[in-house]
Amino acid sequence: MKTLGTLGERETIRIIEKIIKSDATIGPGDDCAAIDIGNKYLLVTTDMMVTKAHIPKGMGPYDIGWSIVAVNLSDIAAMGGTPLGLVTAIGITRGHPIDFIEQMVDGMNDCARRFNTSIVGGDTKEHDDLVLCGTAFGEVEKSRILLRKGAQAGDLIAVSGMLGKAGSGFYSIKRNLGLTEAENALKRPWPRIKEGMALSSSGIVTSCMDISDGLSTSIFELSRNSGMTYEVDYARIPKAKEVELAFHDLERQKDLVLNFGDDFELLFTVKRGTEEALERVAVECGCPFTIVGKVTSGEENILIDNGKREKLENLGYEHFRTRQT
Amino acid sequence: MKTLGTLGERETIRIIEKIIKSDATIGPGDDCAAIDIGNKYLLVTTDMMVTKAHIPKGMGPYDIGWSIVAVNLSDIAAMGGTPLGLVTAIGITRGHPIDFIEQMVDGMNDCARRFNTSIVGGDTKEHDDLVLCGTAFGEVEKSRILLRKGAQAGDLIAVSGMLGKAGSGFYSIKRNLGLTEAENALKRPWPRIKEGMALSSSGIVTSCMDISDGLSTSIFELSRNSGMTYEVDYARIPKAKEVELAFHDLERQKDLVLNFGDDFELLFTVKRGTEEALERVAVECGCPFTIVGKVTSGEENILIDNGKREKLENLGYEHFRTRQT
Repeated sequence: MKTLGTLGERETIRIIEKIIKSDATIGPGDDCAAIDIGNKYLLVTTDMMVTKAHIPKGMGPYDIGWSIVAVNLSDIAAMGGTPLGLVTAIGITRGHPIDFIEQMVDGMNDCARRFNTSIVGGDTKEHDDLVLCGTAFGEVEKSRILLRKGAQAGDLIAVSGMLGKAGSGFYSIKRNLGLTEAENALKRPWPRIKEGMALSSSGIVTSCMDISDGLSTSIFELSRNSGMTYEVDYARIPKAKEVELAFHDLERQKDLVLNFGDDFELLFTVKRGTEEALERVAVECGCPFTIVGKVTSGEENILIDNGKREKLENLGYEHFRTRQT
Repeated sequence: MKTLGTLGERETIRIIEKIIKSDATIGPGDDCAAIDIGNKYLLVTTDMMVTKAHIPKGMGPYDIGWSIVAVNLSDIAAMGGTPLGLVTAIGITRGHPIDFIEQMVDGMNDCARRFNTSIVGGDTKEHDDLVLCGTAFGEVEKSRILLRKGAQAGDLIAVSGMLGKAGSGFYSIKRNLGLTEAENALKRPWPRIKEGMALSSSGIVTSCMDISDGLSTSIFELSRNSGMTYEVDYARIPKAKEVELAFHDLERQKDLVLNFGDDFELLFTVKRGTEEALERVAVECGCPFTIVGKVTSGEENILIDNGKREKLENLGYEHFRTRQT
């Protein structure tokens, strides 16, 4: 009997997408669905967190609550949207202390308020384990929506912030390295709401997504959506300072930066010749945007490392299928 | 240490509502949140289903998928909304057969399509158990929104459909009674979308909610929201024909009709003297609406049974706290 374990997450999602007929203008497969509501799109996204696979050690209830809101807002950010609100559903055991749910809900509320939005409703159910489901919705001018598709050969590839930070935090918690800032980045993701809105307004962005599943996987996603290939220069990727404190081994560092994920940064493409305009948006947002490569019409996605061109591997996180480690 | 088990679901929700600051015009506490988006409200609602507590025996994967969509649409119906779409998050084990998820997603898709809407996105995560979270959103003209508050003394209390059907289905499955129609009503709830929209347009409705948590609980909810009291005549409640096949005992029948829940019907109030207008809406929808009592400004909610006036008890389903049976 074929089970989901034999398929992997992406294949499972493909089966689901074959069955479901969506009326949305932008359907499943982007960071959010986009529904036509007049002169704007309504953006909607949902994310489930289950204790076992998605809640790293060291995360307290406040962090868990913060995260379920942050990861959903990150999807709104990736489409250039302005958040309108969230709903959160909580499955929780009857043995959980009241203090736990209070702190968790505090984290949810604080994250929403920090990004100028709010939790407008929810559901609470008894369950054997802690499960959270968040749904965020937002709006964006139709002509300003940022999609995964749209990049053309010659466009420049850029990322926000510093990569490998959340991964360094993961290993810091695991091996007690005391990289507090990185640990906090893992525990309390920072959705790029302001940056997404500014990039949307700028008119220079040709495609965008968040890199929560890892940079390599996200590059493959943009590539699949645009029908283009991507060349990334490893040396130009902005790396969090904690990466070299987490691993001395250069290959492990590279794996962290390219594949670990959980950095809720934006990966996007801009028209060539817009470097100055991009820099202005970066200054306006107080967030570094770094050009890491270019869009090409080649055969495969390429990583340039130390002057050598190698095939970029798609090694981001995937559920269901046992990870080969 | 105080745990959620000592509190009960409603008290837990009150704790959550104290912490969360919602910007929505209609906040937590109604069937949906309502957010101002110009000349309409955006309605949003979320519902989580966990295997243990919420999936009755006898439900196959198709029914489970249908239900998670139906229960969310029922909340949109209760506010008089037109559905815009849904997102569904699925937590599922890697041991689940592919066929299971295909059937479940078929059920989701069919239910959404049946009510002229669609599933526009979702999330799939590996989990130890099956957990579903659905979020529905819809829109309604601002002046036409149906809320839990708003009833005035003298208004008439009405319900759609026939009560006790889902409960009869539950006992039919449990005791092999073969009440197929009732079993199907339990397995595949029918959200009153068309009816909610028609009641909203009619302009005669003063308050509304769905009775998924049971009639008695819903009466108390409307009462709390309007600050009025409710008098229900047991003899006038439209009872599904299966109720007397499920139990010979009249008290058990009464418990089924008043407290079991899972009938996704609408409980609403209309201005007095609008009986004829209500009947026209019923005919238009092809759905019976029955007047079961009236709104008063008394001391407590009353059930009139066999000419006797008794205090109506709030005995609907509540999670967390152990049920006294």
